Amino acid sequence: MAKEITSREEDYSQWYNDIVKKANLASNSAVRGCMVIKPNGFALWENIRDQLDRMFKDTGHVNAYFPLLIPKSFLSKEAEHVEGFAKECAVVTHHRLMNDPDGKGVVVDPSAKLEEELIIRPTSETIIWNTYRDWIKSYRDLPLLVNQWANVMRWEMRTRLFLRTSEFLWQEGHTAHATKQEAIDETIQMVNIYAQFAEEWMAMPVIKGVKTANERFAGAIDTYTIEAMMQDTKALQAGTSHFLGQNFAKAFDVTFLDENQKQQLVWATSWGVSTRLIGGLIMTHSDDDGLVLPPKLAPQQVVIVPIPKPGEEIDEVATKIMADLKAIGIRPIYDQDKKKRPGFKFAEYEMRGIPVRIGIGKRDLEKGEVEIARRDTKEKTMVPLEGVAAYIENLLVEIQDNLFNRALKHRADHSTEVDDFDTFKKVLEEKGGFIYAHWDGTTETEKKIKELTKATIRCIPLDSKEEAGKCVFSGNPSKQRVIFAKAY
Amino acid sequence: MAKEITSREEDYSQWYNDIVKKANLASNSAVRGCMVIKPNGFALWENIRDQLDRMFKDTGHVNAYFPLLIPKSFLSKEAEHVEGFAKECAVVTHHRLMNDPDGKGVVVDPSAKLEEELIIRPTSETIIWNTYRDWIKSYRDLPLLVNQWANVMRWEMRTRLFLRTSEFLWQEGHTAHATKQEAIDETIQMVNIYAQFAEEWMAMPVIKGVKTANERFAGAIDTYTIEAMMQDTKALQAGTSHFLGQNFAKAFDVTFLDENQKQQLVWATSWGVSTRLIGGLIMTHSDDDGLVLPPKLAPQQVVIVPIPKPGEEIDEVATKIMADLKAIGIRPIYDQDKKKRPGFKFAEYEMRGIPVRIGIGKRDLEKGEVEIARRDTKEKTMVPLEGVAAYIENLLVEIQDNLFNRALKHRADHSTEVDDFDTFKKVLEEKGGFIYAHWDGTTETEKKIKELTKATIRCIPLDSKEEAGKCVFSGNPSKQRVIFAKAY
Repeated sequence: MAKEITSREEDYSQWYNDIVKKANLASNSAVRGCMVIKPNGFALWENIRDQLDRMFKDTGHVNAYFPLLIPKSFLSKEAEHVEGFAKECAVVTHHRLMNDPDGKGVVVDPSAKLEEELIIRPTSETIIWNTYRDWIKSYRDLPLLVNQWANVMRWEMRTRLFLRTSEFLWQEGHTAHATKQEAIDETIQMVNIYAQFAEEWMAMPVIKGVKTANERFAGAIDTYTIEAMMQDTKALQAGTSHFLGQNFAKAFDVTFLDENQKQQLVWATSWGVSTRLIGGLIMTHSDDDGLVLPPKLAPQQVVIVPIPKPGEEIDEVATKIMADLKAIGIRPIYDQDKKKRPGFKFAEYEMRGIPVRIGIGKRDLEKGEVEIARRDTKEKTMVPLEGVAAYIENLLVEIQDNLFNRALKHRADHSTEVDDFDTFKKVLEEKGGFIYAHWDGTTETEKKIKELTKATIRCIPLDSKEEAGKCVFSGNPSKQRVIFAKAY
Repeated sequence: MAKEITSREEDYSQWYNDIVKKANLASNSAVRGCMVIKPNGFALWENIRDQLDRMFKDTGHVNAYFPLLIPKSFLSKEAEHVEGFAKECAVVTHHRLMNDPDGKGVVVDPSAKLEEELIIRPTSETIIWNTYRDWIKSYRDLPLLVNQWANVMRWEMRTRLFLRTSEFLWQEGHTAHATKQEAIDETIQMVNIYAQFAEEWMAMPVIKGVKTANERFAGAIDTYTIEAMMQDTKALQAGTSHFLGQNFAKAFDVTFLDENQKQQLVWATSWGVSTRLIGGLIMTHSDDDGLVLPPKLAPQQVVIVPIPKPGEEIDEVATKIMADLKAIGIRPIYDQDKKKRPGFKFAEYEMRGIPVRIGIGKRDLEKGEVEIARRDTKEKTMVPLEGVAAYIENLLVEIQDNLFNRALKHRADHSTEVDDFDTFKKVLEEKGGFIYAHWDGTTETEKKIKELTKATIRCIPLDSKEEAGKCVFSGNPSKQRVIFAKAY
């Protein structure tokens, strides 16, 4: 089975597609650019969603649901926003089909043309701020801390499963505040939550930073981002949090009476992560044998495989281990299939990325032992039956940590400070990864560098120290380094 | 606050709208027929969804996600299906907007016309069975027990919040089986799960039955339904489960090799419930003072209100009660607002339907007591502080039971066996409710009765006994009674 995967070295892009396909995570559909998320992939999304949802609720957010369709005119109300999204909108123009007069199936009923076209939401700022006008009258109505789990549609020309699809699933937070500072604090809080989730749950180290003007969300004053490094050393933007200022309040006339009875415009944020995270998860940890999943997000954390096949004694031991594991909150499965050989099963569970495998063999049982194999390092250990649950509990923590540390080391190994443009190009070509370089702050330079090297500024890191220097391209003065990289 | 609600007697329909609005559950949006589900309404949906999801998973189902958009041609592949849905489809015809040459906002870019139009899913049988063709090759791939939580769109002409909206949220299960019997068993299992959920969680009694040919899902061989009676005695179809036979397998060419290496068509079911359930929940239990929620689904089960306002001593007691309630899995909130008067708060929480209110007053505390008010009966009781958590735990069970029994009695009081058409019309007009009558089994009679009385056959009850009789309309022979009612 594993043989069917192209190795990362041979063709990284094909390797990714193979993993998605062979681990049964997703597939392309009959509709261009739209994917089918298969049960294995969706189980991952459920775990991602549930944990993020808990973190949102713990910080006072509530969920709501807004319409899928947005009147075309709404999009035009915020000038930069329409510029950013109009070119990739699915447009609904009719509301009925009818029998083809020629007798061939159904055709659009021309008499059912909509007065105003509707677009499928590419993001929901416009419809939500149009709604907030009714919800917000007074400072007592603020803040509004609302999140939505939804599907959105952006008509992408080049799509890749999870990483860039025309339809994707995401959450979009949309908050409204009485003061600028409160909105900025919320924006930063959410990028921090995303970073915490990425590192603690996905075991994917990220750099928090601010986007340059050129890379900002259409309609934002500031866009905060978390950027991760994939195994091919390219960057993945994994989540963004936007301080929207009063742009949408202006566009949709959303004001409130403050404590002094003065009419004020409302301050806004929005923030989102999507099924793209699953792409990031795959490209951070997986290997040439298949998926590798961090235990905290793995739908199944442990698989018990009888060697060579189930039998009364083995069933008994397996049942006991299952119960012990479940009792301490671990998610195990027991493979009772009698037809497939153990070797075939091992390969299959490696493909699926189950973090720990317990092999139960008759001869080992006589010695009171089972074989425990970890997916991340492929190490196998004989472990006494007694205390196997506690052993696994620790092992899962160790695997989670190891995955994070491995990814962190990979990122450190591929991060380089560079001070001249020749080195910049050389490092980018030969070593790749994140290049920390000075930049003069102009969009012109940023675009030139992209044109020449395909590298973009991923972010201005939040934790970067001030350091006087010269722009790696223009030689103009700069106050701090920014991160350049090729990106997904 | 409660005064703003129209009474049920005065105008039942307006009462419903008032509840939805005043309890902040949902509102109409800028897009015709599409609603905004507000945080209070969405919290209910989350509780409904989470419990159903557990029940689906406990019976072996997994979740997946299929594309929002369906190629127009797919719809035509199943003849009855297209007949049922083509007339209410939102149709996507273009994938780009552009600046209006006249400078007024954006217009549809005519050069971005799709080769084939796409419709927004009204239900997903077609796209899913087109996908199953790739998933199913052998009997070893069966059964497929897949569910999807999603938004769907049906361009309804007359909409009502939750009960009938153009876009709604739902789950749709789509299963594939090797044998007819297995598919029928699944269909029945799911209608049983819906009934169990409705009765045990929503405290809403339902009758399980089979739809007549005329009321069947477009493309089904048999449609099973759960039917509930609302307070105005009209019926609400609350969930359906369809045995689809091999219709979709035929339409999308989905076959499998059976154990004897023979090519066979796959058997199908589909089943769904939607945000309509929230409408049913409201119309089953609520009263002229606002929402009444069954404790099991109430986002907040208990509210603690200080009388007249918070203070050190009351805070201490409230904090202790909160902790005690949380420790036994109850969801309480503590209202610490100092500005609003208790009377105002009482009305507000009655409006929101929180099942139990604890009033903590200084004088009562001196006696070691708090006041406990239940939302369903409005009864108030003084309860000793000690053991208040256990008291509430029992009370919540009692309220859940009371709501169910009250609704059950209401249904019994408005169910009538009728044997002639004059009585049929008289009962329907004067008493309303469910009429158990004999029917000759023809669509013709069914349609005539509907034309004359607006009553439809809600279902042929699963548990009805065989009983020879004569059709209430035609006088032709009949073997069992069916349920007629006016319906939402």
